[in-house]
Amino acid sequence: MNSQFSYLYQLRCSVCQKPYDPNQVQTWCPECNTPLIAEYRLDLLGSRVSKEEIVNRPNGMWRWHELLPVVDPEKIITQGEGDTPVLSMPRLGSHLGFSHLYIKDESLNPTGSFKARGLAAAISKAYELGITRVIIPTAGNAGGAMAAYAARAGMQAAVFMPTDTPEANQLECKITGANVVLVDGLISDAAVRVREKVRLEGWFDVSTFKEPYRLEGKKVMGLELAQQFHWDVPDVIVYPTGGGTGLVGIYKAIRELQALGWMNTNRLPRIVAVQAEGCAPVVRAFEAGQDTCTFFEGAHTMASGLRVPKSFADRMILQTIRETNGTAVSVSDEEIQSAQRIWAVQEGMFVAPEGAATLAGMLKLRDSGWLQPDERVVLLNTATGLKYLDLL
Amino acid sequence: MNSQFSYLYQLRCSVCQKPYDPNQVQTWCPECNTPLIAEYRLDLLGSRVSKEEIVNRPNGMWRWHELLPVVDPEKIITQGEGDTPVLSMPRLGSHLGFSHLYIKDESLNPTGSFKARGLAAAISKAYELGITRVIIPTAGNAGGAMAAYAARAGMQAAVFMPTDTPEANQLECKITGANVVLVDGLISDAAVRVREKVRLEGWFDVSTFKEPYRLEGKKVMGLELAQQFHWDVPDVIVYPTGGGTGLVGIYKAIRELQALGWMNTNRLPRIVAVQAEGCAPVVRAFEAGQDTCTFFEGAHTMASGLRVPKSFADRMILQTIRETNGTAVSVSDEEIQSAQRIWAVQEGMFVAPEGAATLAGMLKLRDSGWLQPDERVVLLNTATGLKYLDLL
Repeated sequence: MNSQFSYLYQLRCSVCQKPYDPNQVQTWCPECNTPLIAEYRLDLLGSRVSKEEIVNRPNGMWRWHELLPVVDPEKIITQGEGDTPVLSMPRLGSHLGFSHLYIKDESLNPTGSFKARGLAAAISKAYELGITRVIIPTAGNAGGAMAAYAARAGMQAAVFMPTDTPEANQLECKITGANVVLVDGLISDAAVRVREKVRLEGWFDVSTFKEPYRLEGKKVMGLELAQQFHWDVPDVIVYPTGGGTGLVGIYKAIRELQALGWMNTNRLPRIVAVQAEGCAPVVRAFEAGQDTCTFFEGAHTMASGLRVPKSFADRMILQTIRETNGTAVSVSDEEIQSAQRIWAVQEGMFVAPEGAATLAGMLKLRDSGWLQPDERVVLLNTATGLKYLDLL
Repeated sequence: MNSQFSYLYQLRCSVCQKPYDPNQVQTWCPECNTPLIAEYRLDLLGSRVSKEEIVNRPNGMWRWHELLPVVDPEKIITQGEGDTPVLSMPRLGSHLGFSHLYIKDESLNPTGSFKARGLAAAISKAYELGITRVIIPTAGNAGGAMAAYAARAGMQAAVFMPTDTPEANQLECKITGANVVLVDGLISDAAVRVREKVRLEGWFDVSTFKEPYRLEGKKVMGLELAQQFHWDVPDVIVYPTGGGTGLVGIYKAIRELQALGWMNTNRLPRIVAVQAEGCAPVVRAFEAGQDTCTFFEGAHTMASGLRVPKSFADRMILQTIRETNGTAVSVSDEEIQSAQRIWAVQEGMFVAPEGAATLAGMLKLRDSGWLQPDERVVLLNTATGLKYLDLL
């Protein structure tokens, strides 16, 4: 038998394990009210395709197509996302006493943010399934990415965002022709408005984890990291956690690569969730030993991507942290701003506030002794600081 | 003999052909007052290294290191620049009647602009030569890129820019710790101030073509384009022309690849310079059959990168256009804005005004019959539209 383009074979509820058909439009498990997870025929894939083959393909996220959900290559909607650099940061590291400090810089994606990956996957699969109208509640960057990919697919797009969303996010949605609705409140309030519109008008909702494929796009960050670390893993990955798709995705990627036999190690990186003090539902639940999060009342932080009072994937986020011996830590807006400046001055990188939060979190974990200064630490920068100029 | 890291062997004046030593700090030819051009031992390189070897290296501009000026790999200052995508644009193409329309999207570089390439090369080589203080007059993006790479190299940076430079460019320079000076007037006025500071305080001037290596970094756009077109060339490349480094660089790249015997064709792409009606020195000189440009008085356009009244490389720009059977065309600010919107709505790409100018120019050349709708046309987008939000 020949190799096939995608080895996706089913979706499965992350709680009750009930299977769902990926050839139909799916959302989440209505019985458990939890996300669906894509599963691939890894045994078959491992016997037919080598990692070297994937490494030698042209750049970008889609060179991992066997581990992505799109069946027909013609349906891929791409703007060149993926294959962002991992760079060592010797000046910042030595300034802070770390000897192996790295950035995975997601600002080098289309729309200037890691959201491009998830939305490329979700919009491509929606396009393949015949969907023509997509809608999203967003803290900012996900809306911009959805609008961009929807336009390229010729779909109608509607974006609901809080009124205090950075101006760059509002404008990038409008210029691509999306219908932008500003909502007083948080992303959770925008989500209420989206659900209403979905119920009344039948748009397809691409909210975080409300469809199964944004996770798959984000997963590719983990696939790339493994390759960039020569099929090993760093000791620690520090991830700014709002909806948590990337955190869950990176872990899923490493698990899939291990199952494929492509990794040189069975070790896992300790995965750290960084949140803002003003919105830290995961930190609270982690510290309290809970399996799910409680809605964080009165959420506020300058890092708009971290203003997520409760993720739909809270259970998986907490599982990931615990299974990898990671932790969760919160930082103040002042610490975020200070980290953003130090990073820019030391390495010339203008990171997003959410990205800067990882540096602030790392410093807290160094001070508490959780992190040793000679460990290999990857800070994940989610977006370019250029999208947050109103905060400077 | 083994392969070496760089095959650079000399610099040569672009007019009098006098050679200069690349192991010393060089600027331009003082006798002709024209740029110096880097020359490589292509015969030796071609016999020792294959293009397949370069293709299979990890991503980024520096996989072409044999054709770049840095001798010691430890001296490379990188933020992951290069290997930007070439994407086909079927919706925009069909909307406008073109069947083979492509973007080379330089917005996916560090600092969100193609300037990252030239400054990565120039700052790396300056670092290798022991320079510690760098200065630049800029329309915006070059300053941001210089500040970013200088910070990562631990150099002092000074940036002189017109007061009407987009806010994003001012802020990205400041946050990395550069000394930013706003100048009433145009980039040519900023250049006067820079020359004064260089004379009094001895900073190293990385103005366009005033040192030889920004051209080498920009050249890699042409190396990548050739690879992305499978060692062939598109019929037409449309390039927004301010200082013109990339236009000259793409041509230089194709010539070097042909000399190496790595191309499948001896054809050249017709290279088109697009300028703004309010600042079109190249268009005027091209139409008048002149070898050099006249300073364009009263320059004005919303596209800050095109507000260059006279490039230091005017002679090479005009040569490139003529030798490739290209042309030069100017577009209005209204046409630029309209092109930016069409592009965003059709393909979900939020391009810079300078990038949008290429689309506007293409439409003029279609209307005049210079361009056939079935030709393979590459539009070069120089930066992300996110850096120009004050214009929307």
